[in-house]
Amino acid sequence: MNNRTEIASLGEFGLIEHLTKNFEIQNASTILSIGDDGAVIDHFGKQTVISSDMLIEGIHFDLMYSPLKHLGYKSVVVNLSDIYAMNATPTHITLNIAFSNRLSVEALDDFYEGVFAACEKYGVDLIGGDTSTSQKGFIISITALGEITADKVVKRSGAKKGDLLCVSGDLGSAFLGLTLLEREKKIYLEHPEIQPDLENEQYIVGRLLKPEARKDIIEFFEQSNILPTSMMDVSDGLSSETLHICKQSNVGCVVYEDKIPVNDQAKQYAYKLELDPTACALSGGEDYELVFTVPQSDYDKLVLNEQISVIGYITDIEEGVHIITKGGSTHHLTAQGWNAFKQ
Amino acid sequence: MNNRTEIASLGEFGLIEHLTKNFEIQNASTILSIGDDGAVIDHFGKQTVISSDMLIEGIHFDLMYSPLKHLGYKSVVVNLSDIYAMNATPTHITLNIAFSNRLSVEALDDFYEGVFAACEKYGVDLIGGDTSTSQKGFIISITALGEITADKVVKRSGAKKGDLLCVSGDLGSAFLGLTLLEREKKIYLEHPEIQPDLENEQYIVGRLLKPEARKDIIEFFEQSNILPTSMMDVSDGLSSETLHICKQSNVGCVVYEDKIPVNDQAKQYAYKLELDPTACALSGGEDYELVFTVPQSDYDKLVLNEQISVIGYITDIEEGVHIITKGGSTHHLTAQGWNAFKQ
Repeated sequence: MNNRTEIASLGEFGLIEHLTKNFEIQNASTILSIGDDGAVIDHFGKQTVISSDMLIEGIHFDLMYSPLKHLGYKSVVVNLSDIYAMNATPTHITLNIAFSNRLSVEALDDFYEGVFAACEKYGVDLIGGDTSTSQKGFIISITALGEITADKVVKRSGAKKGDLLCVSGDLGSAFLGLTLLEREKKIYLEHPEIQPDLENEQYIVGRLLKPEARKDIIEFFEQSNILPTSMMDVSDGLSSETLHICKQSNVGCVVYEDKIPVNDQAKQYAYKLELDPTACALSGGEDYELVFTVPQSDYDKLVLNEQISVIGYITDIEEGVHIITKGGSTHHLTAQGWNAFKQ
Repeated sequence: MNNRTEIASLGEFGLIEHLTKNFEIQNASTILSIGDDGAVIDHFGKQTVISSDMLIEGIHFDLMYSPLKHLGYKSVVVNLSDIYAMNATPTHITLNIAFSNRLSVEALDDFYEGVFAACEKYGVDLIGGDTSTSQKGFIISITALGEITADKVVKRSGAKKGDLLCVSGDLGSAFLGLTLLEREKKIYLEHPEIQPDLENEQYIVGRLLKPEARKDIIEFFEQSNILPTSMMDVSDGLSSETLHICKQSNVGCVVYEDKIPVNDQAKQYAYKLELDPTACALSGGEDYELVFTVPQSDYDKLVLNEQISVIGYITDIEEGVHIITKGGSTHHLTAQGWNAFKQ
């Protein structure tokens, strides 16, 4: 950023025009986009999936270590992740933001650059929204829409006894990235002369600051003719999401600690901090992986995808929700899996 | 409110369940609602209209004189107003809110009571959203969806030379209500022993705190076989909205001051403050009336509706955007219609 243009110099409508002028429509279903009271989309007989999320400075992100471009990207991705978690294809987003005059037009440009990069990567159209002033901090609220044929919707509530419990990618890295950045922030605030060295920790930092949604997994399901019986994205941590699926499906399950995928760099950093990598995976959150269940008969198809790990299986509700540790002992899984695990 | 339940005592998921447990689905198109990663809606061959808005404490409302129930109601209504302004029927909303722990569960109950009252009145389903913590103040972000058949969409850009410029209801009252409440707040802060007397000003206060969206006007269009050539809702003031329609339609227009509808109580209060009622109507905003254009041939149908005023007509773009005062003089209309008018 070499220049600083005050937002007031553009005015509200000028600002919206400035921020959205280079944005091209990607979906044929987008009949009318930004610039009217509402946007209009057509459906060609499909159903629409909708999800909405808010990100608030100081609560969900820290501008001290979140570059605005990454923040724009992540804001879109976390919403698309919810659409993929329904087995749907995201098509449209609306974006409401509020900010104080601490931010310049150039800063907002960076944020929108990230928004547009995510829209382009995932084939999504930004079709509307609202810009506003805030009393304090930067506030982002996004609603994402996706499309799906009626018989492909995957809810949280369809897991059946005997189904395999699976997860995409690896877990716990975003939490460790957050721990690292919070640590470096603290050091920097106390000793501004010390530059943070993140060279060896790019993976976990990247997982926090610029997560991706698992479009590839949904495409793999389609290609492989797999229809999960239940699915959720991992925003709060594997424990919490597994408990949601079990509760809404009225089932129990068993998770094997040694099957939970954790990246090697993440493991190393966890050990460095004397944290249990499994605890990070269970309770860390913000990984935006997919946790899902499939019938056992899909096992042969699943193993062809290295990005998918089978981590357990679904049981009767009476059997509860358990984790079997590497040492072979059995523990109840709770939403605060980490604390529970440490008992 | 007799009791105070801390939000922390319910937890995030407990809170969402508590707030939404009595909410019944009203639209057959709502296939899946709150409680999963996304909601699912079906379309029966119609198009979807989407609009999104943010309301922020201290910027858009003041909890000192906005009862939370009214605020919930208004938050929904201002979004539905945008859907009606496209000539569509609102069907669904998502609601994201963020709040500090200053608010109790009972306060949020009041807010949701207002949200549900608006949903019920307008036949809309709340299908999802996010609750979060804020650093400061109460933040509300709503996305509204509506449905429409493709040939009925009314944009801002279709006004044609010779069309009649019309507005529903009356204008300026919400601004005068705001002026009154801000005045009373100031008096109260300086002299807490003086109780505000709003007895004679219920109309203007009501217009600010509990506005309605003009569902009736859209239904009248349908029944009367009227399809406006352009339409917008009045959120920023008649001047600003008229200029938007003219700019996006590439036309000019003439507005007659004596045709602009202003409520009598609003007029009296404006005179009391030595404000020009017309200036309040032109620049006041937040009236959530509809401003629209129709072909002259629709005039005979329009006059049957007492809630509609014909306030001017559309001209060639070269003729600009003007207002003809009661005294017969002509002025340029600007977005700050009030200031311009006072020149």
